[in-house]
Amino acid sequence: MYINRVSHYLPSQVIGNEYFTELNNLSSEWIVERTGIHERRKAGPDENTNTMAIEAVRILLETIPYSKNEIDLIVGATYTPYDTIVSLAHAVQHYVQLPDIPVLSVSSACSSLLNAIEIVEGYFAMGKATKAIVVVADHNTAYYNERDTVSGHLWGDGASAMVISKERQTESDLHIRALITGGAATSGKAIEAVVLRPNERGVVMPYGRDVFQNACTYMPKVSQQVLQRCGLTIDDIDYLIPHQANHRISLNVIGTLGIPESKLISNIQRLGNTGCAGCAIALSEHFDRFEKGQRIVFTVFGGGYSYGAMLVEV
Amino acid sequence: MYINRVSHYLPSQVIGNEYFTELNNLSSEWIVERTGIHERRKAGPDENTNTMAIEAVRILLETIPYSKNEIDLIVGATYTPYDTIVSLAHAVQHYVQLPDIPVLSVSSACSSLLNAIEIVEGYFAMGKATKAIVVVADHNTAYYNERDTVSGHLWGDGASAMVISKERQTESDLHIRALITGGAATSGKAIEAVVLRPNERGVVMPYGRDVFQNACTYMPKVSQQVLQRCGLTIDDIDYLIPHQANHRISLNVIGTLGIPESKLISNIQRLGNTGCAGCAIALSEHFDRFEKGQRIVFTVFGGGYSYGAMLVEV
Repeated sequence: MYINRVSHYLPSQVIGNEYFTELNNLSSEWIVERTGIHERRKAGPDENTNTMAIEAVRILLETIPYSKNEIDLIVGATYTPYDTIVSLAHAVQHYVQLPDIPVLSVSSACSSLLNAIEIVEGYFAMGKATKAIVVVADHNTAYYNERDTVSGHLWGDGASAMVISKERQTESDLHIRALITGGAATSGKAIEAVVLRPNERGVVMPYGRDVFQNACTYMPKVSQQVLQRCGLTIDDIDYLIPHQANHRISLNVIGTLGIPESKLISNIQRLGNTGCAGCAIALSEHFDRFEKGQRIVFTVFGGGYSYGAMLVEV
Repeated sequence: MYINRVSHYLPSQVIGNEYFTELNNLSSEWIVERTGIHERRKAGPDENTNTMAIEAVRILLETIPYSKNEIDLIVGATYTPYDTIVSLAHAVQHYVQLPDIPVLSVSSACSSLLNAIEIVEGYFAMGKATKAIVVVADHNTAYYNERDTVSGHLWGDGASAMVISKERQTESDLHIRALITGGAATSGKAIEAVVLRPNERGVVMPYGRDVFQNACTYMPKVSQQVLQRCGLTIDDIDYLIPHQANHRISLNVIGTLGIPESKLISNIQRLGNTGCAGCAIALSEHFDRFEKGQRIVFTVFGGGYSYGAMLVEV
């Protein structure tokens, strides 16, 4: 299957580290040293997961190489739902006005982009769809505690959307050569390390060190697995786009894999942790940079725990 | 694919209509006349979506006809999440201690059971799984407003789990012959009629009449479609298990389809609307009643809107 086009939407409000210096007495240097984050975006009072998802799809539809009426599947992903019943996928279906196609939303925390794409792969394999919108959005600031000195400064808001087709549509399509997802709820402090309980405290990360260690283990491992599945090695890839959780995790991952920093694509410095949208926003930001024959590995890790990797080739 | 076994879990606390008579001055007769509901279950203070899901799976595993270690996929569904990051599927993965298999949770409101099964169908079609746990749970009382005189008395809590295999495992397996799901976010007041916004008011149903009308349109229509896909007619089915939203909706659906009430399986009278678990609980309650060759149609409708139907044969 093929990623035909990608878009992203970011709220306009920029929150610099000085905001958390004033609020929580955390210096910008300390935040940058520990996370790589300089600033992040915050959704406005009239924005939410669904409106950001719709904005990303609105931008996407301006560029798709076929009629939107050919789209026969919508898969959304978020762990910060505006509405758990009228999910972001349903909001997008209403926006695009395509009745009677399968529509669903998934959550596997920050890994959800790859779970959503794997669901699409399944619909294609069943012959139940041929062209899908995948839309990912996280509205972390709707659930975070900005006074939480452990994780309050990590989170940003954003959305991304892509169209994926079973058959190649254009020369610039990204061919998805392999995709692996997995749950790791049996590892470490998986079921308590990062939680978002809407009726309790919102998103909190009581065991950040366990998250860090597991992310730094799983992302290199599954990246290698996805390459092996294609008979390739780490030297065959041009770029790595990891989940944007923490720049130190990303540097650790490329260190383990033996990839130079020039091959690492990051946006956490400007956007913070935008949840399951982070990787997809990074792809959208760099889409025009990729050249024929280049290979990109995506790798994700999230609460739950959950992980995955995907190899694409231009 | 085949449903091998099904289980369900219900919290022990029973809430009769007299509770809502006292609270909201709604007579039991009025509630029964308008909804069919006599009583419903309410999760205890230490229970939630994840604990109910685990209980259903614990019961399920006592009866499955193969080793739990053969399970290679877990799909959860809920619109009333305890934790949107450590989802019910992840909680179940931790409980069953099966590392490194795909794990994800989905939400398409009260239709989610069929979306979850269709995701499993996709994993089977891709060759990425052969045996799956599907676990559905809704903890409506965690999000409802019991003083809401429009919908407060509708909701119950419960969970169900099933194992589904690509190949037949036992003589009593239910063969899934066809499955259709769809989003209907373009219909009526779809995106505002039933909403659950965790940061706002919880689950509310401002346009119950629109829900009623669309449910009574979509469920018969998609039931007919799933039969047509198998070259069957309504006379070929032995039972109908509709989403347990309102007994009047169920009666309307069988009226439209021309099915006698003896073929209708319901539990709403005892359990209220248990969300996406309702149909699956009903299947579990009646699993031993089905005889070789009998056919059962499931049909669902939920907020968003969303709908689906599935034909199984013993």
